[in-house]
Amino acid sequence: MQSQYSPKVPKIAVLRLALYAKNLDFLERQGLEIISSLRLAELCGVNPAQIRKDLAYFGQFGVRGRGYYVKSLLQELHTILGINRRWTLGLVGAGNLGRALLHHAQFAREGFVFSVIFDKDPAKVGTQVGGLLIRHINTLGQWIGNEGSFDIAMLATGTQAAQTCTGLLIKYGIRAILNFTPVKLQVPEGVYVEDVDMTLRLNLLCYRVITGSEHSLNG
Amino acid sequence: MQSQYSPKVPKIAVLRLALYAKNLDFLERQGLEIISSLRLAELCGVNPAQIRKDLAYFGQFGVRGRGYYVKSLLQELHTILGINRRWTLGLVGAGNLGRALLHHAQFAREGFVFSVIFDKDPAKVGTQVGGLLIRHINTLGQWIGNEGSFDIAMLATGTQAAQTCTGLLIKYGIRAILNFTPVKLQVPEGVYVEDVDMTLRLNLLCYRVITGSEHSLNG
Repeated sequence: MQSQYSPKVPKIAVLRLALYAKNLDFLERQGLEIISSLRLAELCGVNPAQIRKDLAYFGQFGVRGRGYYVKSLLQELHTILGINRRWTLGLVGAGNLGRALLHHAQFAREGFVFSVIFDKDPAKVGTQVGGLLIRHINTLGQWIGNEGSFDIAMLATGTQAAQTCTGLLIKYGIRAILNFTPVKLQVPEGVYVEDVDMTLRLNLLCYRVITGSEHSLNG
Repeated sequence: MQSQYSPKVPKIAVLRLALYAKNLDFLERQGLEIISSLRLAELCGVNPAQIRKDLAYFGQFGVRGRGYYVKSLLQELHTILGINRRWTLGLVGAGNLGRALLHHAQFAREGFVFSVIFDKDPAKVGTQVGGLLIRHINTLGQWIGNEGSFDIAMLATGTQAAQTCTGLLIKYGIRAILNFTPVKLQVPEGVYVEDVDMTLRLNLLCYRVITGSEHSLNG
């Protein structure tokens, strides 16, 4: 079945589809062929109606009374999410976090491949990490001109360099950024940013602990 | 002013307060004493009314016509967020990601200090990283019994070990977990989990790129 992309799909539903895919991937590697909707829901920490509702944005999946075929639903979800292909990644910022991202096994397993690394630290530029040469951020345009581009930038710089590097990335045609800095990046239309805001999440966690906020935090 | 904790504060507002604090911290280190609400809003990528509204949950801040006193607002925000104190961290999972978290400068600057590391890999247990010994996860209860506990667990294990380790943490009294795995953790009431779901965010980013979903993803 060809997926139909609806502009009305809520972000949170797409995040859940990615979560379902992660769990189905785990089940497939265990050799499971079919799973009940109840068991899949349990694994994912949602209820079966939620799974049905999220999938219904894209078509009809599953077999009444039996559940879901693991392999075929996983393939459908990969198609829906656009991860049934190879995506190239450019790492911007080769500090501890950047290096960890470079070695994060989950990315490679899902078809995300780093093709280049940039940093501004002269001590790092010219050295290798994970089999890739660290290049100076000022050579970004030159590299893209010579080598072609990459699909997604992983921004793992310090806070102060985040917006400047984003400007450079956009200047040279990069339009998808996974932002690991706490900076709220300013980008023009047609550029996509998702934030992996770990320090903000940590602050939120502290807030919840000291206030005892359990179920009351919405949004 | 003593902060009043309202259970009705939306999660997204708390995340924005953390973002304001990050930017104020940056301004304070630059020696700035006062900032206009317009400029602070620009830096944070929101509008000034949003800042006023978010702060209004906790009291009155800022000076009409002048803006905000950087240092005093920063202190208020730290008090509100509960980060005007030291928090101890326990790292669970000493892979690449875990090691990067251990060296993440932002955590230390905000008063988050790692006090222990656990892993299950016999090749890692007994070695040191960042000045701390890696201990076997099965000795968690023993360590807490002898050394006291820690405030927040950073869960950076593989997908398959995530729920088991969470069960162990809860068994020994840990009630706050920053979850770096894509697993939706099952926890009882009184335990707080925040997800830093980088692979799910990456999947969402791909979905947005292939569907051209710019402003339509809510939630």
